[in-house]
Amino acid sequence: MSLLLAIQGWDRSAWADRLRRLAPDRTIRVWPDDEDLAGIRYALCWKPPEGLLARLPDLEVIFSLGAGVDALLGDPELPGKPLVRIVDPDLTGRMTEWVVLQVLMHHRMQRRYDESQRAKQWAPLDQPPAAAVGVGIMGLGVLGRAAAKALRSLGFKVSGWSASPKEIPDIACFHGTDGLVPFLTETDILVVLLPLTPDTEAMIDYGLLSGLRRTNHMGGAVLINAGRGRLQVEEDILRALADGILAAASLDVFAEEPLPPSSPFWTHQKVTVTPHVAADSDPDTICREILRQIANYEAGRPLENVVDRQRGY
Amino acid sequence: MSLLLAIQGWDRSAWADRLRRLAPDRTIRVWPDDEDLAGIRYALCWKPPEGLLARLPDLEVIFSLGAGVDALLGDPELPGKPLVRIVDPDLTGRMTEWVVLQVLMHHRMQRRYDESQRAKQWAPLDQPPAAAVGVGIMGLGVLGRAAAKALRSLGFKVSGWSASPKEIPDIACFHGTDGLVPFLTETDILVVLLPLTPDTEAMIDYGLLSGLRRTNHMGGAVLINAGRGRLQVEEDILRALADGILAAASLDVFAEEPLPPSSPFWTHQKVTVTPHVAADSDPDTICREILRQIANYEAGRPLENVVDRQRGY
Repeated sequence: MSLLLAIQGWDRSAWADRLRRLAPDRTIRVWPDDEDLAGIRYALCWKPPEGLLARLPDLEVIFSLGAGVDALLGDPELPGKPLVRIVDPDLTGRMTEWVVLQVLMHHRMQRRYDESQRAKQWAPLDQPPAAAVGVGIMGLGVLGRAAAKALRSLGFKVSGWSASPKEIPDIACFHGTDGLVPFLTETDILVVLLPLTPDTEAMIDYGLLSGLRRTNHMGGAVLINAGRGRLQVEEDILRALADGILAAASLDVFAEEPLPPSSPFWTHQKVTVTPHVAADSDPDTICREILRQIANYEAGRPLENVVDRQRGY
Repeated sequence: MSLLLAIQGWDRSAWADRLRRLAPDRTIRVWPDDEDLAGIRYALCWKPPEGLLARLPDLEVIFSLGAGVDALLGDPELPGKPLVRIVDPDLTGRMTEWVVLQVLMHHRMQRRYDESQRAKQWAPLDQPPAAAVGVGIMGLGVLGRAAAKALRSLGFKVSGWSASPKEIPDIACFHGTDGLVPFLTETDILVVLLPLTPDTEAMIDYGLLSGLRRTNHMGGAVLINAGRGRLQVEEDILRALADGILAAASLDVFAEEPLPPSSPFWTHQKVTVTPHVAADSDPDTICREILRQIANYEAGRPLENVVDRQRGY
């Protein structure tokens, strides 16, 4: 009846304390401190080492502690047990906050005003309304749809692109390879909220960025990525910034995290770096959600938000 | 049948060109270039010099080119003609964009992430959801209500304060002197969108700021002023920042504009200065709206958005 916490890169003991506080009746084991892997029915994971889950003889359900499950699916020895991802309204709301913040920061030219402030210059700039700006969202899952709705209600012209056809009120929805060029043509600000799959890996490259609209008050297109680092080709972003195709970028995710000190993004004048915090869920909320799912499962009810391994999310 | 443009501090000739383009059949005169003040029926004003309007013998209607009419009402010789202010949805949308941007910038600790980026530090911070943050809006006119609604839909706990009682769905509304303390007690981020009147002048002072809640993830209360500069006591804001009552401020308006180079706000680490651009309307939109009102007026229909001089807005 034990739970195993299998976490790399986050504070393991804080997660263990939290879980013990919220589920005092359960046995909580923490990898790699606990060597006994027998009797573990549930694994709660964030970037666990490859092969670890395959060594749990009594495993019944794998829970991802984050929304993205690409790291788990990348484990060649991943057991064929149900893999459950986190979909909670709190996480969706946080992602919307971050996306809206970054879109508005570029649209309202806040970085140029920051520069004027440093120079003590009172320099108003011409500002079109949101209705003149096309925001294109790649990825129309729960996160993409919520961001689209919030941006639409602020007045932006919002369109969306996804692999398969979607319909969202007031949002022009494009899909598939054929839909990509018309989608990009209307997009001044590109928001990437795609899942990472073999099809989407490295999709945000120079060719794609070149298709964006760049005749706007920001002086070029803008890239905002809060999906996954490996969706984007980092050298291509730098090249598009140098060429003037991109006026600016806000990046929360990177191929290598933490972003290494040698990355040119840190000091790039036109790049805003945040440390993968766009949609950090409240850890208590995540734990409560997983405990609720375990209680449901033990009562014989179906698990929710089970990953479709064919689709990859 | 002439129109007079009476503008200080903005680009007069750009406004004249615009108006001539949109109303080619009308005579457009521009103060101070035109010395003949006879035959002017309509004055389109932004901070006109005191006494100028009193010298127009044929004046019928005064139009303000901006939303605030405090500068006009401060003219002791202001003629007793209808004074019309700009209320357009475009302006309301722009103000909402700026307010939402500034609220999110503080809530999402963007300035701290900017610092981390400069130091090449990957440093995620604990982030509560919007639902844990109280945003209080002072001034529940068209602009305040629109900002309240947008912030509420992003998940913030929004409350409002106004001089007279108001009711807005999902927003806790306080009013009058008695309502001020309970309003401030729930407010982590204070958004000021009040009109400037003898009652509201210098209202945002040290005593008021001391009443704000400051036990939050931002390390203190936050002041956001996009109303008028003279609503706030600038020395008191600096004192509240020094004392830790305020964690930060975003100011779009100042007692003296342009903000003089000697102002400590320019270089204050915790202050974001923007040059009175929160709700710059599109000039074409303003001109079209005024021409529409003039056409209505000449057709015998009533003027809209006429200022109540008793209330001051």
